Parts: sequence; C-alpha cells; structure tokens
Amino acid sequence: MKIYGDSKSGNCLKVKWTADLLGRPTTWIETDIMVGESRTPEFLALNPAGQVPLAVLEDGRPLAQSNAIILHIAEGSALIPADAYDRAKMLEWMFWEQYSHEPYVAVARFQVKYLGKPVADLEPRLVERGKAALQRLEDGLAASPFLVGERLSLADIALVAYTRKAHEGGFDLAHYPHVEAWVARVEQALGIAEPVAA
Amino acid sequence: MKIYGDSKSGNCLKVKWTADLLGRPTTWIETDIMVGESRTPEFLALNPAGQVPLAVLEDGRPLAQSNAIILHIAEGSALIPADAYDRAKMLEWMFWEQYSHEPYVAVARFQVKYLGKPVADLEPRLVERGKAALQRLEDGLAASPFLVGERLSLADIALVAYTRKAHEGGFDLAHYPHVEAWVARVEQALGIAEPVAA
Repeated sequence: MKIYGDSKSGNCLKVKWTADLLGRPTTWIETDIMVGESRTPEFLALNPAGQVPLAVLEDGRPLAQSNAIILHIAEGSALIPADAYDRAKMLEWMFWEQYSHEPYVAVARFQVKYLGKPVADLEPRLVERGKAALQRLEDGLAASPFLVGERLSLADIALVAYTRKAHEGGFDLAHYPHVEAWVARVEQALGIAEPVAA
Repeated sequence: MKIYGDSKSGNCLKVKWTADLLGRPTTWIETDIMVGESRTPEFLALNPAGQVPLAVLEDGRPLAQSNAIILHIAEGSALIPADAYDRAKMLEWMFWEQYSHEPYVAVARFQVKYLGKPVADLEPRLVERGKAALQRLEDGLAASPFLVGERLSLADIALVAYTRKAHEGGFDLAHYPHVEAWVARVEQALGIAEPVAA
C-alpha cells in the first residue's frame, strides 16, 4: 500500500502506525501540504477532496479519510473489538475525534507550531473546546487503561495522534493525568515512544 | 432502542431513518438542544459529551455519535456493502461528512434558520466550504446513483441529512443537479419525501 502523507500530520501518522503494527508493508510518499502538494492535478485525481492521508491500495484503488483507512487496514485484526458494543464504542470515539477533538487540538497546534501564532493569540473558542476535548478523554480514561476497555483499539490510535502533540498547541497534559499516562501507554504499544534524555 | 434526539437535527434524524428502514422499533425522546436539554446532569450521565443523538440500547447501554449509532444499527444489513473496498468508501464518505460537510452546511443552516442570521451575514469561510462540500458531492454522484455504487448505503443516509436542508442555510441545490436528483432518490428510498403541493 502507498500512503501519501505529510509527516507533520497526526492523521497521516495514524495510518503508518496501524500498518506497521499489523506488519503490512507500506511505501510512504511525503506530501507537503504547506506547499500545495495535496492540491496538484495528479493528487486531486486520486482524492478530489484534496486531503492527506491518501492510501493507494495494492490494486491501485484510492482510499481517503484517516479513520476509514485504518478501519480498512485493521479489518479482522485485534485492533477492532470482536464484541459489537465495544466495536460501536470504538467508532463513537473515532467519529468524536474528527468532530470534537481534531478541529481544536490539532488546529491549535498547527497554528502555533507551523504558522507561528503565539499561544496567547489563539481564538478563545479553539482553546476552550480543545480543553473540553482533553477533559472528555480524561474522564473516559479514568476507569480503564484504553479507550475501549482493556485492549488497544483503533480508537486509541486515532486519538493519540494529536493528543500526544497537544503541548505544541499550548495545552498542558499535566492537567489530565490519566491522559498523560495513556499517551505513554499507547506510544509504547505502537513503538513510537521517544527516548528519554539521559 | 431509545433515541434522545432533537428533531431539528439531521444527525438525530439519520438514526431514526435507519432504524425505521430496517424495521427496528425505537422510542424517540425529544431533546431540545436550544434549551439545554442535552446538558442536564441526567443526560450527561448517559453522554458526557453532551451531544445528541444518543441511543440507549435495549440492555440500557448508551451509544453516541450519529454515524457510530447507524453503523451499529445496520450491522449485517444491506445498508453496509459486503465488499471490503465499498465498505471502506462508505466509511470515507461518513468521516468526510462529519469533518468537511456538516460543520459548514449544517452550521450555516442552524445560524440562518434557528438563530435568525441573514444569509448575507454568514462568515464567508462557512459559505465557501459549504459550497466546496456540495461540489464534492456533485462530483461524487456524477457517475452513480448513490455515493457507493448502485445501492443505498449508510453514506447516503449520513449525507442526505443536511444536504436536503442546505437551502435553509442559503445554498442553492439547483447548482448541483446530480445532488438534487440524489436527494430526491434517497428521500424516496427512506420514505421521507415531502408531498408535492397540488
């Protein structure tokens, strides 16, 4: 599978992490959204929405939307709970991620880290909703190690992508201790934990 | 199944339409978001995200997020394509709906119809992105009667919910003839077509 992705983007990294964890070979094609590489005619022919990540399957067929791609890659694996209710809760978290978390936590980070906006100049609504999303995660993780019970699922992969970088948008994960511990747990499971400085 | 829903909300109606189409009995509990009925302690105990729709399954377990609920209700039915790639494309449309369509098309409608904002005063970015979403749908429907091939799927139900009301937010579906014909087709399939005035 080819993955057209921007390595600055948590949405793109989700796809790589899921494929790597399941041992599926991928070819990463770095696609820099800052210079319009997802808006070229060649790219738009594969994904008319002009968004990364974009997967191109072995048979050449394209698939967009990070969470749809990881659901496709992980079909039949232990990353998707076998129980119907647990599976539905996983999807609940994944849709919530795209609607109520990414548009605030990831957008704040993008503005601060990549557009150079001072944290103090972020739109108050963005900060308030980002904090609400982190609090919702904190509450969701109070009683279980992963978002859906005792095992890593795609919900954790989808939500860790930008949560682990929330500090780059001015959010302080120290206020959300269950989230902070969960980020470390998921990074460990994905093999993406950064080495601790000596 | 109980559905806590606001009948002004396309996200809530999706759940009712899917259940009705599959012959699943539901009890609709009207929950007026304009007066805070999704923010009461009783509601927040069921859905800490404070959002409608919320389904309460027969066994009492809650499930939120419109698209997660309809995926749960429709498991094993013909509304979810049997082919893995078609199923992935359906999910692509459903995630795209929540990220790139609803936040513009539904929000414009909410501001105009329910908050009384004149169409001319809508934020230009909202209008521009709403039009881009409708154009993306138009392109996606140019070659097939439904979003994923020849048959109605959950992608159509998810996307018709606010597209059929786009005019209430100032969008003119006459500019998107494939979309206009598809809305009528999906409304017919769902049995929600409004009677034509004599």
